[in-house]
Amino acid sequence: MKYLDGDITPDKLKRLSIEELKVLCAEIREFLIKTVPKTGGHLASNLGTVELITALHRVYSSPFDKIVFDVGHQAYTHKLLTGRMGRFGALRGEAGLSGFPRPSESEHDAFIGGHGGISVSAALGIAEAMRLSGDAGKAIAVAGDGAFTNGGVYEGLNNAGKSKANLLVILNDNEMSISKSAGAISAYLSHLRTTRKYYRAKLSVKGFLGTSRAGEAIKGAISQTKKFVKNAVYQSNLFESLGFKYYGPVDGHNPEELIEALELAKMINSPCLIHVKTKKGKGFKPAERNSGEYHGLDKAKRGKGTFSEVFGREILALGEKDEKICLISAAMKYATGCNYFNDVFPERFFDCGIAEGHAATFACGLAARGMLPVFAVYSTFSQRCFDRLIHDAAIEKLHIVLAIDRAGAVGEDGETHQGIFDAAMLSIIPGFTVFSPASPEELRECLRRALYEVKGPVAVRYPRGRAGFADKGGVRGGAGDYRLFKTGSAKSLIVTYGRLIHKIIGRADALQLIRIQPLPDGVIDIIRGYKNVLFVEEGTERGGVGELVASELLRRGYRGKYGIKAFKGFVPAADTEKQLSLILSADTRKN
Amino acid sequence: MKYLDGDITPDKLKRLSIEELKVLCAEIREFLIKTVPKTGGHLASNLGTVELITALHRVYSSPFDKIVFDVGHQAYTHKLLTGRMGRFGALRGEAGLSGFPRPSESEHDAFIGGHGGISVSAALGIAEAMRLSGDAGKAIAVAGDGAFTNGGVYEGLNNAGKSKANLLVILNDNEMSISKSAGAISAYLSHLRTTRKYYRAKLSVKGFLGTSRAGEAIKGAISQTKKFVKNAVYQSNLFESLGFKYYGPVDGHNPEELIEALELAKMINSPCLIHVKTKKGKGFKPAERNSGEYHGLDKAKRGKGTFSEVFGREILALGEKDEKICLISAAMKYATGCNYFNDVFPERFFDCGIAEGHAATFACGLAARGMLPVFAVYSTFSQRCFDRLIHDAAIEKLHIVLAIDRAGAVGEDGETHQGIFDAAMLSIIPGFTVFSPASPEELRECLRRALYEVKGPVAVRYPRGRAGFADKGGVRGGAGDYRLFKTGSAKSLIVTYGRLIHKIIGRADALQLIRIQPLPDGVIDIIRGYKNVLFVEEGTERGGVGELVASELLRRGYRGKYGIKAFKGFVPAADTEKQLSLILSADTRKN
Repeated sequence: MKYLDGDITPDKLKRLSIEELKVLCAEIREFLIKTVPKTGGHLASNLGTVELITALHRVYSSPFDKIVFDVGHQAYTHKLLTGRMGRFGALRGEAGLSGFPRPSESEHDAFIGGHGGISVSAALGIAEAMRLSGDAGKAIAVAGDGAFTNGGVYEGLNNAGKSKANLLVILNDNEMSISKSAGAISAYLSHLRTTRKYYRAKLSVKGFLGTSRAGEAIKGAISQTKKFVKNAVYQSNLFESLGFKYYGPVDGHNPEELIEALELAKMINSPCLIHVKTKKGKGFKPAERNSGEYHGLDKAKRGKGTFSEVFGREILALGEKDEKICLISAAMKYATGCNYFNDVFPERFFDCGIAEGHAATFACGLAARGMLPVFAVYSTFSQRCFDRLIHDAAIEKLHIVLAIDRAGAVGEDGETHQGIFDAAMLSIIPGFTVFSPASPEELRECLRRALYEVKGPVAVRYPRGRAGFADKGGVRGGAGDYRLFKTGSAKSLIVTYGRLIHKIIGRADALQLIRIQPLPDGVIDIIRGYKNVLFVEEGTERGGVGELVASELLRRGYRGKYGIKAFKGFVPAADTEKQLSLILSADTRKN
Repeated sequence: MKYLDGDITPDKLKRLSIEELKVLCAEIREFLIKTVPKTGGHLASNLGTVELITALHRVYSSPFDKIVFDVGHQAYTHKLLTGRMGRFGALRGEAGLSGFPRPSESEHDAFIGGHGGISVSAALGIAEAMRLSGDAGKAIAVAGDGAFTNGGVYEGLNNAGKSKANLLVILNDNEMSISKSAGAISAYLSHLRTTRKYYRAKLSVKGFLGTSRAGEAIKGAISQTKKFVKNAVYQSNLFESLGFKYYGPVDGHNPEELIEALELAKMINSPCLIHVKTKKGKGFKPAERNSGEYHGLDKAKRGKGTFSEVFGREILALGEKDEKICLISAAMKYATGCNYFNDVFPERFFDCGIAEGHAATFACGLAARGMLPVFAVYSTFSQRCFDRLIHDAAIEKLHIVLAIDRAGAVGEDGETHQGIFDAAMLSIIPGFTVFSPASPEELRECLRRALYEVKGPVAVRYPRGRAGFADKGGVRGGAGDYRLFKTGSAKSLIVTYGRLIHKIIGRADALQLIRIQPLPDGVIDIIRGYKNVLFVEEGTERGGVGELVASELLRRGYRGKYGIKAFKGFVPAADTEKQLSLILSADTRKN
């Protein structure tokens, strides 16, 4: 390639002509199309931001200026341009490049970016810190339109809008988050997109430069007679309502236009927002046609034979029999298998956007009026409704069902996406029931019990990936809440829950908890019958079920040996099997 | 009184003339001014909503229509009008009326309302459930302008705006949340308030009725020539951008105007928003003049001699020596003692509004650029940043300081506000350090250590109310992280943290943990030296420190007796002393 190689830097890029820049963009695109399908990762969203990120590095100077990516899986071009091209072969692998921005990986990654909706808040903090320290740099948040369905972005804009922060927010508007963007904001942005002609006419320059000194000179040139047209453009501009200068929409695949807009924003030292139109999958026909399918490229075939698919088909089957069942997703319709239900019962399916807090409370509202809401959510994102689950659901014992997907180790997405906290988090909440099935059969059974046997809030949690596990028998007990597998030796017992049971059966007597919260009747008595007990947990050790069992045992005078093998901290990106083997090889700190 | 007595019902109210209604409102106001200062509770906000709630019950029919109050301390009039007047003497007392709406208390309370920002999501869920069930009622969310600083309201509006839900949102705009409303939305609402003349001219009727059948007739009467004026009115209407019909602003103390607006909304079966202007403390001069002071009327003198005041004065003193220190509040400036710092260092104080998620991430942004951010937040509201603390703070080990106020039992606010989950919640997060001082001296010491000794995220948690505790000595150990109080008997040990130590010293040997996470060096060894150990905890038992210690002890082969006394579920409203005695009398389940 002519310009893209391991030595490319933002400085070199600044010396290229516009025509050379376009060649560089084409080379980046070629590289991504060649590399990402091999490593796995996010192709479509990264193809959409090639010109935007290149223009950003052209106009601004990282790390003097700080770029914060919201849900950073649009940031590969940024990684390529900041000295990390050579490590792309190991993208998302163990000890390789993170799939998301990580300040610990590069000084060019100003903030972590795995969960959505945080970029404006983080960039505002950075901008205020720079202002207080007398640094002249700008803080730049790059957020997709999907992130604008999250209340966090609104809170960030609301606080930024009244500040004096040197903050630029770039709305990367590709007309969809991971699924199609949910809610009114999506329709609103679409309305804004149709006003594009006004950008070309430069009518918005006046409003944009209103309060800056540099702007005063330009302002004079703009005729008063255009005022009404300007009003028409600005009618209902939500971002202006929140105190931002708004500029756009800009063609996100046209470097000249991007650079012009970014240069303009560079003259403003107060909060402004540039609305950039991009196309997910740009330049790669299959990804352009169906960017949802190319959102994340797992090495394994997506969806088929997974727990998500089992859940999706079962909730459809249940929904066919019971019209009280409603299904809720937070911008993860396909990934959680909600599409099957949505196809048949669109009236009872609700995609809330990247708004997990709202989704949980919305479910509570449905439950308060007698519906049976099921909220399908990744374990890592369920963390975002912790307070909603306590305050809105548990105090009044509302019967909502969480279908917690990606519970446990999730593989290559790394620390930001591991599902290792949900069991501990939910167990803190009084009156929450939690099931942790280990097979498709158990998942179906737990889902039925969660809907029809349990009162109050309840979760069914299941792992990412293949559901190729068959129930292995054992003796059911505790009203079906556990399985006991005897080997005959009867001295040592391994206790676990979820898919780890399949790695354990036969090594010693094994006790599989199917309901982990509250503890099934009788399990403490069973455990007390063994001299050696090991609790193995695909989750965080602190606050986990293993500690609860330890506490119960000690208080009941247990005198045997007890150990816990679980995750002791954040779990870095690696193959899932490798991550699971980390648990089994963990130090148990037995005395 | 002529109309207000224990037998008043929404039905009776519907039969009163407007003039009689005004007398009723005056009587309600008189009752509140007489009663609330005796019981404690929220006076100013309730005085502001007398006419609004009376008009609501006049036009709508609860519980056929469902009224959801956002942060329900504006709902006393609603309680008075729905058969609960007789129980007002016991407001917020043990077994008395809740200070907030509780569905378990009355069928007229459609949803719980202790934490802010959830009403639109809950009401939308209720509305969708009614739509799916064929119920004709309307779901009504009543939210103060303070709630509009919360992203949850935005997420709710965004999802409602594209729905067909029969939803009415009432923006109760009193120009402040608890402190002055933070952020751009506050300035924006103030801008809308100045457009009041357009309501009187009925120009907004056209837009408001646009899609309803009832509206078609009215629409014809409105001249096309007024279109430009309408555009001027609607320019930048944020709520319209989000798909709502907007109507207002309406004088919230004028029953005729309120009833007219509510009747209009009754004709619309899709999402609409009525903007109502009210005055906090209306009709009671001292509360009108300083509604902040009359926000919550505790029986005890507010602020003076509390842990909040100790914190506030100490962070000011620290801020005088170190200009890196920034202080953040989420709409609780006075209640958390941030006012002292704010008075001297307004540039380094940030009130983020009711936006705890943003506040946490904003703090992380400040920390990422080398500042020392301290976020003062109630324990119960810290639950709202759980994911931010994991994802934004802990993974990259950013050094932010949480000053967690109201940790532990909080008294009369009841289940929704108890600070019983923070210790368990924070202990789940890898690398989080947590201090739990028991006296003003320790609070000051822990704050200094949190700022200058600890790396990574750290919390200092302290209780609500009086700080009249002096350190009682004992032997400091674990680098100062604990105190050991010996009695000489050496058989039994009570372990605790926080203010409970003052109730325990002298009853047996006592170990006070000052740092609760990670466990101080050496404490497990000390505990192992005793045959009888009791862990006493002002927090939830599940996931708490007592369980962690149990787990450590068991894994190290401890053979003594161990018990835990802690809260086992939600803690109802009562005197704080009574709540603490609940812990000490709790069943320890020793064998």
